[in-house]
Amino acid sequence: MKEQLSVIKIGGNVIDDTASLQRFLDQVSSLNGPCILVHGGGKLATSLAADLQVPQQMVEGRRITDEATLKIVTMVYAGYINKNIVALLQARGCAALGLSGADGNLIQAHKRTGTQQDYGFAGDIDAVNETLCTGLLQQGYTLVVAPITHDREGQLLNTNADTIAQELAQALSRQYSVRLIYCFEKSGVLRDTEDESSRIAAINKTTFSSLKAEGVIYAGMLPKLDNAFAALDKGVDRVVIGKWSDLPQLVSGQNGTTISHE
Amino acid sequence: MKEQLSVIKIGGNVIDDTASLQRFLDQVSSLNGPCILVHGGGKLATSLAADLQVPQQMVEGRRITDEATLKIVTMVYAGYINKNIVALLQARGCAALGLSGADGNLIQAHKRTGTQQDYGFAGDIDAVNETLCTGLLQQGYTLVVAPITHDREGQLLNTNADTIAQELAQALSRQYSVRLIYCFEKSGVLRDTEDESSRIAAINKTTFSSLKAEGVIYAGMLPKLDNAFAALDKGVDRVVIGKWSDLPQLVSGQNGTTISHE
Repeated sequence: MKEQLSVIKIGGNVIDDTASLQRFLDQVSSLNGPCILVHGGGKLATSLAADLQVPQQMVEGRRITDEATLKIVTMVYAGYINKNIVALLQARGCAALGLSGADGNLIQAHKRTGTQQDYGFAGDIDAVNETLCTGLLQQGYTLVVAPITHDREGQLLNTNADTIAQELAQALSRQYSVRLIYCFEKSGVLRDTEDESSRIAAINKTTFSSLKAEGVIYAGMLPKLDNAFAALDKGVDRVVIGKWSDLPQLVSGQNGTTISHE
Repeated sequence: MKEQLSVIKIGGNVIDDTASLQRFLDQVSSLNGPCILVHGGGKLATSLAADLQVPQQMVEGRRITDEATLKIVTMVYAGYINKNIVALLQARGCAALGLSGADGNLIQAHKRTGTQQDYGFAGDIDAVNETLCTGLLQQGYTLVVAPITHDREGQLLNTNADTIAQELAQALSRQYSVRLIYCFEKSGVLRDTEDESSRIAAINKTTFSSLKAEGVIYAGMLPKLDNAFAALDKGVDRVVIGKWSDLPQLVSGQNGTTISHE
């Protein structure tokens, strides 16, 4: 039987608030078993860009990464946020080690091209260095991954953290039974987005079809769930979506929405 | 017989100039055997501080690291410079992996206290995680180390890159025959600082005493050589000081100034 691995994606809201981040990292450091934490960016890159008078262009929620912006996100994501998370986990007795996608060729990507919109230095992922991850996890390190990749030709690339978490989870499914956990602000997929008590505890392909037909799942949640099923098809054991403050219960499957084949 | 390890410190001037950095990294990627590259900061932190209107206080060439400056150096050293060097080495077929002192508890330090001058968030080194280094080096990774450490209580600390190189070299001398190479702008220790051809090829304790007595070695070079002999006393095989563009010859001992017990 494969060992369980948690791949956890944490977004900007928790990172932006010191008290929330501390509370979240208390939980991460208390988890059992190997763990990879992928973090997004938070508002710091946006505020640094404003301070440096580098205009930011957002298209459908995605940042257009020009050269000045790439420098900013590299500094903020791979430098400030990554190293602070690592230091805070170390203070909690967790053997954290921070990596960008360039380090040890963890994540090789290419600059996104051929799209109508030019996203600048945005990376689409080609490959993950499983050997590096497995080796470090087996030595007891918790990996903290910043959403910066590279093209192996010397170019750093800004890359979606959700996608990084998914690709790492998929690649590591060969060695581990992987739980891919997306932390956000809601307690899971809700029947009524205004009602936290309307959480749907479990979704499989059959119930997903019904929920779509009923119109319960729509808009922003659709691609998230499509990606979750794609991850399951590539070997991930289960995908859990839920509130960051419930992390232990998301890992154990007692809270959030669990997406699985069952 | 122990395997040879090169611990190379590179300073700011090379980092600030893209063409020089590329040329230097060509050389690093062509070296044989395990290698750790420790980089300093260059002028980028100073210019970012100016852009962000964070006043910088320098005392005897050392930066006073207040909270805003710590954020800047963490972003610049552990983020921008470290990840760019890693990506550029990867592009040269070198399996580079970037670390700060917080990552995997590579370098544990404490905030400097008890000095007349308050240096702010400046770290003095307590311990090095040899196991992490040795494991990664044995897997063929070239380690690229940023001069940011931590106190294991969640605090990042700005730390002198020369000292980091020395401490890593000393700690790894238990496992490796270590050459500690300090790259700078001159071709070595010079009899006449204005004459590059007056390089002193080798210095041992006896000749060091004579050179001091003659007044050939003075001022800034004295502490460098004192540190070099301290490193030798702690097991480092040899210390080489020389010009960054001569790196292969510094490693082979055919250029620069070699400081050894012999």
